[in-house]
Amino acid sequence: MAGSISARAISDRESSVRRHAGATFSGMTHPIVHVEYPEWVDNTVDWNRRYLSDDDRMRVAIAVARANVEQSTGGPFGAAIFESRSGRLVAVGMNAVVRLNNCVLHAEMMAFMMAQQRVASYTLNAPSLPEHELHTSCEPCAMCLGATLWSGVRRVVYGAAREDASLLNFEEGPVFPESYHYLESRGIEITRNLLRDEARVVLELYRAKSGKIYNG
Amino acid sequence: MAGSISARAISDRESSVRRHAGATFSGMTHPIVHVEYPEWVDNTVDWNRRYLSDDDRMRVAIAVARANVEQSTGGPFGAAIFESRSGRLVAVGMNAVVRLNNCVLHAEMMAFMMAQQRVASYTLNAPSLPEHELHTSCEPCAMCLGATLWSGVRRVVYGAAREDASLLNFEEGPVFPESYHYLESRGIEITRNLLRDEARVVLELYRAKSGKIYNG
Repeated sequence: MAGSISARAISDRESSVRRHAGATFSGMTHPIVHVEYPEWVDNTVDWNRRYLSDDDRMRVAIAVARANVEQSTGGPFGAAIFESRSGRLVAVGMNAVVRLNNCVLHAEMMAFMMAQQRVASYTLNAPSLPEHELHTSCEPCAMCLGATLWSGVRRVVYGAAREDASLLNFEEGPVFPESYHYLESRGIEITRNLLRDEARVVLELYRAKSGKIYNG
Repeated sequence: MAGSISARAISDRESSVRRHAGATFSGMTHPIVHVEYPEWVDNTVDWNRRYLSDDDRMRVAIAVARANVEQSTGGPFGAAIFESRSGRLVAVGMNAVVRLNNCVLHAEMMAFMMAQQRVASYTLNAPSLPEHELHTSCEPCAMCLGATLWSGVRRVVYGAAREDASLLNFEEGPVFPESYHYLESRGIEITRNLLRDEARVVLELYRAKSGKIYNG
């Protein structure tokens, strides 16, 4: 429920402010942005498994989206980044816009940030690294599609389509067919609507809980 | 210089890892992403001034971009968010992709994150808040333009144009005339090429220092 999500967001924020009061320069206290997973992540994700099929990988993204709704920690979106060949799970991401008061923290964005922190590189396409791919439970918005290009992933697989998200009044922003052509022309492979029905169930679950629509 | 920037990035990262070893759940250590300003920010920015003209506001963004290059803390891009009517400076942002190993941390993105943390809202367009606007030293990329829509700013003013950044091989991604129309149709005002020559000087400074081109 919206109320429940908001209450948790406020409580998380206050606790974060207590722990990280901000750096002080010249007497002025500046904000520090602190991005971390909610505590349920290890109950949802098996980090040691090798995810070899596309279905297995997408189900991680969908499971994270579902847990985010069930635990009232954010919007109905999840993402996961894998090493393409080994199937090793590098990072997940879940929508944290309301929880962390941060419009940037869509599931895909958190996954990119966490993966890059883990491998200590600002691109997952560094010469020393194996190929990486993103699985996301819903078609990326304009921001996330732009970030995909900078992230260094070589492939994007999405579950639910933008029309499915639009039914909940979530908006994708300025994404056009040319946006996808642009990514493809840079060698990024796009796979659409994998396990779309399973992904859509999580959107419906969020709607049934009257979850907050935080765009705009 | 690229070498100097890289060395600083590694040193910053190691220090960050020492200070924030990550949360441990079930024996698994997860990354924590920690975004903060470099230490020079208060030498560059006067937080107490009221910035009443567009030129004054853009010069904050350009000054931050310049300091980022001069201090070798990142790419030649700066941004600032103001309350539109009062001219109060709410947050700045500087490119931190290399410094923090994070492809998401373009100047505009850091400015959005810091501003939202400061006002404790995931949108700067909340009913309790005054109108906000973004000034950025260079035309936003696809990711930042998408984030602009979610950020809640009501106006975007940019300095240098995408062609100026392209001369340094920085890429803007899938941005089309329709992308701007989309934002404008949502009531976001766009002002282009303000103090373009002053903004371009910082790009040239970065090129002269052989700064790292981190896209891709």
